[in-house]
Amino acid sequence: MNKVLTEWVASMVNRLVTSGVKDVVISPGSRSTPLAVAAYLHPQIRHHIIVDERSAGFFALGLTRASETIRPVALICTSGTAATNYYSAVTEAFISQLPLVVLTTDRPHELRNVGAPQAINQVRLYGEQVKTSIDLPVPEETTLSFMKQTITRFTNLSMQAPMGPVHLNVPFREPLLPDLESLKQMLKADPVLPERQRIRPTQADKNIFSECTSQKRLAFVVGPYTPTSWQKSIVEFASERQIPIFADPLSGMRRFDGVLTNYDTWLASEHRTDWLPEVFVRFGAAPVSKRFNQWMAMANQLVIDEPGSYRDPSSRATICYGDALDFLPLIASANEPRYLERLRFFEEVAESAKSSLQGEAELTKRLLDTSIERLFVSNSMPIRDIDTSLSAGTNIHVLANRGANGIDGVLSTALGSSYDTAHGALLIGDLAFYHDSNALQLLKHHPGKFSVVIANNNGGGIFSFLPQASVDTQLFEDLFGTPLDLNIRGFADTYGLSYRLIERPDEIQEAIEDGVHLIEFPSNREENVTIHRGWTQSVCARLITENES
Amino acid sequence: MNKVLTEWVASMVNRLVTSGVKDVVISPGSRSTPLAVAAYLHPQIRHHIIVDERSAGFFALGLTRASETIRPVALICTSGTAATNYYSAVTEAFISQLPLVVLTTDRPHELRNVGAPQAINQVRLYGEQVKTSIDLPVPEETTLSFMKQTITRFTNLSMQAPMGPVHLNVPFREPLLPDLESLKQMLKADPVLPERQRIRPTQADKNIFSECTSQKRLAFVVGPYTPTSWQKSIVEFASERQIPIFADPLSGMRRFDGVLTNYDTWLASEHRTDWLPEVFVRFGAAPVSKRFNQWMAMANQLVIDEPGSYRDPSSRATICYGDALDFLPLIASANEPRYLERLRFFEEVAESAKSSLQGEAELTKRLLDTSIERLFVSNSMPIRDIDTSLSAGTNIHVLANRGANGIDGVLSTALGSSYDTAHGALLIGDLAFYHDSNALQLLKHHPGKFSVVIANNNGGGIFSFLPQASVDTQLFEDLFGTPLDLNIRGFADTYGLSYRLIERPDEIQEAIEDGVHLIEFPSNREENVTIHRGWTQSVCARLITENES
Repeated sequence: MNKVLTEWVASMVNRLVTSGVKDVVISPGSRSTPLAVAAYLHPQIRHHIIVDERSAGFFALGLTRASETIRPVALICTSGTAATNYYSAVTEAFISQLPLVVLTTDRPHELRNVGAPQAINQVRLYGEQVKTSIDLPVPEETTLSFMKQTITRFTNLSMQAPMGPVHLNVPFREPLLPDLESLKQMLKADPVLPERQRIRPTQADKNIFSECTSQKRLAFVVGPYTPTSWQKSIVEFASERQIPIFADPLSGMRRFDGVLTNYDTWLASEHRTDWLPEVFVRFGAAPVSKRFNQWMAMANQLVIDEPGSYRDPSSRATICYGDALDFLPLIASANEPRYLERLRFFEEVAESAKSSLQGEAELTKRLLDTSIERLFVSNSMPIRDIDTSLSAGTNIHVLANRGANGIDGVLSTALGSSYDTAHGALLIGDLAFYHDSNALQLLKHHPGKFSVVIANNNGGGIFSFLPQASVDTQLFEDLFGTPLDLNIRGFADTYGLSYRLIERPDEIQEAIEDGVHLIEFPSNREENVTIHRGWTQSVCARLITENES
Repeated sequence: MNKVLTEWVASMVNRLVTSGVKDVVISPGSRSTPLAVAAYLHPQIRHHIIVDERSAGFFALGLTRASETIRPVALICTSGTAATNYYSAVTEAFISQLPLVVLTTDRPHELRNVGAPQAINQVRLYGEQVKTSIDLPVPEETTLSFMKQTITRFTNLSMQAPMGPVHLNVPFREPLLPDLESLKQMLKADPVLPERQRIRPTQADKNIFSECTSQKRLAFVVGPYTPTSWQKSIVEFASERQIPIFADPLSGMRRFDGVLTNYDTWLASEHRTDWLPEVFVRFGAAPVSKRFNQWMAMANQLVIDEPGSYRDPSSRATICYGDALDFLPLIASANEPRYLERLRFFEEVAESAKSSLQGEAELTKRLLDTSIERLFVSNSMPIRDIDTSLSAGTNIHVLANRGANGIDGVLSTALGSSYDTAHGALLIGDLAFYHDSNALQLLKHHPGKFSVVIANNNGGGIFSFLPQASVDTQLFEDLFGTPLDLNIRGFADTYGLSYRLIERPDEIQEAIEDGVHLIEFPSNREENVTIHRGWTQSVCARLITENES
């Protein structure tokens, strides 16, 4: 039994490595012992031990994006509710199309659903939120090759388009300790660097695409997390044909000069319909800006996406499946230069107004002027502030959890995604910071310089922008504002981290360069609404004046 | 639309109240606005606002047990990953058989699986971990009565044997604000106090029971959370027929004098087989003690459980479905008095040795000597220490999450379960404390006196008792010991709580009476193993000597 168990787990982690897994995130437990020990001892695996499985799940999610090439990351936990704590990260991975390989260890089949301790029904535990799921047999000589093939198959599947999480339920019988000496002998594998597959479009889709784009005023929209391999071609092609590029803050495209980034601001003016293109060609997911999505829904949309993916909340777009590089050359026409010039004029008006941003928006703008390489952005207000502030030509890699847009697991994901970055930061509100405060335990041991910038407006800032703000104050504060009166400095002391309170946005630069762990910027929800709206209105007023002049 | 929405949510919460729901736990969000507002404004509902949905789920789980009668508790959250954070609590509720009514609000059907923001597939989100699940229609006049019946049906189902969680997915279209004035008019309902149904056994099960118990040496085993209505009858019947009662620490039975409580200790001696009964009649779930369960598997077992429930990890028991009160009178014979006397002698030897308990075990013993009314106990070491220390005749209500035995959500569950208790406490290790530290936010606002007693042995104490302890130190500490070096005092400062470090177990009484929020008792994992094993061995040695004398 012990010999079989040892060979079983050695093969399992060897196969993970030869399928492209480099990082394994382990949460401690007893049932997971054989697999955890094998992953821990494997010379080609980086292991990360994280006690809170919810945090572990999101950390792994972040790790899939830690390097330029997206990589599959494996998770290992013990039996019972441990595995249910991964659910949020697994769900986010499914919608964000990121390759998690979730290995939930389990009691053997005869101890399930019979009232045994620490045994829940783990079969298909993640329901519809994974690409596929399997309940493996207990280790046995006869099924060893089946298991090995399954590991390869599942890890490959997590990387095939659209990428996403897969689940393997891994039962073990006692005794749980493999033979450590022979295990060490067996642990070797040739690591591979995973590649993104290039998927050719069908002729039918090519025809549709040609027809829809022919002789029309076009605009490109590049949504969150568009494949890196598409980006340069999109920029070059657009430039040649005078096609505007609306670049989402998470597209990775705002590092290029000349892309449009201020549309969320200038679309607040009354001229939106005048400058609507006839066709939007969108690459990847829908952009962050609600105003932009509403505008886009007024014209025709062509979405270039990978087979298996479907991202069209408007229910009106034409979807073409395949690689952008195969579609671009099918565009025969070019735009009139005047169109792009006009949009560039709107852009410049908004751009020049950025020096008068105040409060949380100014903080965000100044954060983008620091020397950080990667910035992770929380949902609700921070992502909207980034959308406003992030200008074309900014060479910072900006990331966020924009699958389900949750405020859970943000700090964990940020730390995972910047694990291989020398200098990173997270911009986050106080509610999301509190929600994932367990991840502060990881911050102390983070390999690079990393700052958490907390815009502390004591509650849910976004609700002050929504119709909910109209209800009476007590109801609003209790249900939506939800002030927590957090003591951020207290968290720093608790977890042995450095802390700085900054009262002015222009203090952010120094704090970031000093590598302060927790940087608190106190803000006020109501003031923030007034500042945001006032600034947008002033830009719109200038647009109207200058447009008419 | 607004009128329909208003009537819809008013009816929804009215029906919850008339089906027995008193407490509603709400996590803030936008999509949940209509339902959250209705629950918040309902005069017969106590609302609890908790930001972290994982914590909210476990708090609700605890609330089901806050009063003598188990009550259904409703949960409300917004769309997206928010709902996935309930998964651990829902799973624990399913195995612990507790009535959670989970209301996950959602985007309408046309915005699902199309890449819309904050939309995940919430249909059947909790898979096999709920009794049943439904995806409701969006509010419409025509389906109003269907929805009302569904709320009643689902809430009732959560309370029917075996109790458990139910899931309702509740979609809303924008606009999300109901008409507050008419809503207030519509919110009234007649609250009910739920009852546990008494289920009569079939004649076939009665015959089996009579036959299996006739002319045999019997023992009763009362497992965790046996219905209160059974307890007195079991005690009286057992006393009349000289039948020993093995009372689990979570059975609620240790408040009676004369029940057996020290079996986990004296079964470590070599005499276990000599005093094995012929038949164990077990009520409820299997007990905590592993040693006892192994002993029990050596004899015949009759399990009295509710229909729909199956709790026999041994796969050897005979299961009889129905109410204990209907089975007890079928036992015709009585035990010889000498048998019970002998077991009582073992009990007394172990009992008298309790004064020499040390370390974490002594801390536990002394905690039971305070004036607290309820004690929640974490898994791993604390529940085992309670099993050793909790003596017959102790009038403290002891609770734990013994469905899946997780270390997640323990503090949240403890606070929910003691919400109506004037003086409560939690005994917990440092890992579980850290795992659920977000719940410290609730402690500040807890209505009663409540202390968290942290046995801080800097890591996973239980692993030092398991075979994993044999691996080399570095591997052991990294994968199993997992020291977090927590600064417990820091948590107190962060959340504005009182704190006291106690170095001797006998300081616990004063700290508890003073109502200190966080009481830290530093311990050492290796020493703790030595102390535990030494104490048990000394009791066994005395048993052998005195048994032979």
